[in-house]
Amino acid sequence: MDQKTYDKGLEVRKAVLGKEHVENSLRSADEFNKPFQDLLTEYCWGSVWAREQLPRKIRSMLNLAMIGVLNRPHELKLHIRGALRNGVTKDEIREIFMQLAIYAGVPAAVDSFRIAREVFAEAPKA
Amino acid sequence: MDQKTYDKGLEVRKAVLGKEHVENSLRSADEFNKPFQDLLTEYCWGSVWAREQLPRKIRSMLNLAMIGVLNRPHELKLHIRGALRNGVTKDEIREIFMQLAIYAGVPAAVDSFRIAREVFAEAPKA
Amino acid sequence: MDQKTYDKGLEVRKAVLGKEHVENSLRSADEFNKPFQDLLTEYCWGSVWAREQLPRKIRSMLNLAMIGVLNRPHELKLHIRGALRNGVTKDEIREIFMQLAIYAGVPAAVDSFRIAREVFAEAPKA
Amino acid sequence: MDQKTYDKGLEVRKAVLGKEHVENSLRSADEFNKPFQDLLTEYCWGSVWAREQLPRKIRSMLNLAMIGVLNRPHELKLHIRGALRNGVTKDEIREIFMQLAIYAGVPAAVDSFRIAREVFAEAPKA
Amino acid sequence: MDQKTYDKGLEVRKAVLGKEHVENSLRSADEFNKPFQDLLTEYCWGSVWAREQLPRKIRSMLNLAMIGVLNRPHELKLHIRGALRNGVTKDEIREIFMQLAIYAGVPAAVDSFRIAREVFAEAPKA
Amino acid sequence: MDQKTYDKGLEVRKAVLGKEHVENSLRSADEFNKPFQDLLTEYCWGSVWAREQLPRKIRSMLNLAMIGVLNRPHELKLHIRGALRNGVTKDEIREIFMQLAIYAGVPAAVDSFRIAREVFAEAPKA
Repeated sequence: MDQKTYDKGLEVRKAVLGKEHVENSLRSADEFNKPFQDLLTEYCWGSVWAREQLPRKIRSMLNLAMIGVLNRPHELKLHIRGALRNGVTKDEIREIFMQLAIYAGVPAAVDSFRIAREVFAEAPKA
Repeated sequence: MDQKTYDKGLEVRKAVLGKEHVENSLRSADEFNKPFQDLLTEYCWGSVWAREQLPRKIRSMLNLAMIGVLNRPHELKLHIRGALRNGVTKDEIREIFMQLAIYAGVPAAVDSFRIAREVFAEAPKA
Repeated sequence: MDQKTYDKGLEVRKAVLGKEHVENSLRSADEFNKPFQDLLTEYCWGSVWAREQLPRKIRSMLNLAMIGVLNRPHELKLHIRGALRNGVTKDEIREIFMQLAIYAGVPAAVDSFRIAREVFAEAPKA
Repeated sequence: MDQKTYDKGLEVRKAVLGKEHVENSLRSADEFNKPFQDLLTEYCWGSVWAREQLPRKIRSMLNLAMIGVLNRPHELKLHIRGALRNGVTKDEIREIFMQLAIYAGVPAAVDSFRIAREVFAEAPKA
Repeated sequence: MDQKTYDKGLEVRKAVLGKEHVENSLRSADEFNKPFQDLLTEYCWGSVWAREQLPRKIRSMLNLAMIGVLNRPHELKLHIRGALRNGVTKDEIREIFMQLAIYAGVPAAVDSFRIAREVFAEAPKA
Repeated sequence: MDQKTYDKGLEVRKAVLGKEHVENSLRSADEFNKPFQDLLTEYCWGSVWAREQLPRKIRSMLNLAMIGVLNRPHELKLHIRGALRNGVTKDEIREIFMQLAIYAGVPAAVDSFRIAREVFAEAPKA
């Protein structure tokens, strides 16, 4: 493990997904999933998300599109919250999911719109 | 069909995918696929791509991410060319496909990098 | 938007998915998802479902097969109800999902059979 | 193995995919893929395709939709030829792939239309 | 149907998925899904799982990898329990899902780790 | 980057995919894909493949199953060659792809068997 990459990754991960959520994930990690949590922080967040060649707002937009195709509701929810934190507006989220309807099909978009509305309903401020 | 939406769609489609490519698709359309070409032009291009709430450059970036996940090499090639036309840089394409590696897995990214390099090799200027 | 296509789409959408369900979707639409609801009604229902070259019963059968592959439980439930409305019998639904088992794999079919049984259990008459 | 199911499967498989194609597959089978060829003939063709609760024409239509989603060009080609043998018309194939565009997205449909046109171009009579 | 293959399949299915679970599935089968249950037992379990060229432990490991990609939470849960019965250790499950993270992407692995932890939490002894 | 992890990754990558293939990939890397090649070597190979909790033979088997589902022919070919290097036998490859037929559907298996036979035909000795 590269400690500097890990530390940077942890910082970005908290900034995007929320400090509380990430600390909770790490605190509840056990022998079974700890190596995966480490990989996630270093590889996903330290080696890719932390790269400065794309602004985080764009990375969030790409993620909504990709996770919408990949059909992973838990992760989509997490990254819609992250997108709002990174400055993606509701109008932009709508555009992403309308484009998703065209490229990945209507059911992918119907699910994604429903999940986004659940996130908006829960958020104190969106 | 809404003629205004269709016309706007045709204009955007040509601007993104190249006039020659689109005119070729339309000229070669026959009774079998003409209704699909019309649908494509009106909805995909007129009703979604033409919306101004997202700049075309961002739409191209989303498409590279989505089509990378969807595993459609022909369309990916077309939209990498479109992305270059819309001002997405090679550096940005690399970032998109590195993020694709994280979220959709390494094989999706290996294929997408290879296809991008094929497009760069063919283009007179990229 | 083409008003005639939209109106026709709305009519078909209500006939297939149920008047109450569709009116509920439209009534609860807000600034965020209204443009998507419009796209859905015009494009999916007015420009494709309303085409008369395939009977609605066949379209419903195709949808069960496709949505079974696409792995979208909410949409599958909706379209199983729609299929029953369009005259697809339980025996035909079984055949579709057995064929799904062969082409998309056993887990897709196990999920689809379970969802179909949930729909049959809820319906006053199927 | 149930010989009766196998024999029935072989008969249906030849009727749908073409006698020459199937005999070629069986003749070229070796120790490596023979058990798979047997599985295919008995279960896919004998236990599912041979069931009479759905006409073969409908089964072909479902296959075009499913294989279009599954993104398997070789199999799609084979089953477009099979669909023509089973009486699916070109107009019906267009409708299936337009519906595919809606539910699985535009790239799936673009690929499927292209492959269908390749099949039509090769066939002496379609 | 080949009775011997069916019987062998039933035996293996019970050994892997648990006697109670399988008997419950069969008891609750009705006219609608009985033919599918029969296909499942004979084809999936009798003709493939029962083959002795791979030990059941390896088959379980392959299943966790494949079902992790296929994104089917119900089946994944069932087969994590089956994997534990077949002697796959928690450490091995972790390795499978870390490899899944690399090849199918982080969201597939996040979901699979969460589901595995739910199974471990429920099991009296894992 | 963690140099030790990278070096270990490079060693494992060469051992599995072939020295010549890997050196060729690295030699042809340019500014565009070099960061991705580095990510691949360090994380995929150094942080996951190099972990000793699963033997490489098992990792190869998992990869054939996963890449078979993921529908990536180039990668599948590469990893069938890698699997042969890691001691997976042709008989075991057959079993993996027969199980793939059950869980991911017949078209996934038909494609995978065809690709495996292409690899076997090319190899001087398999």
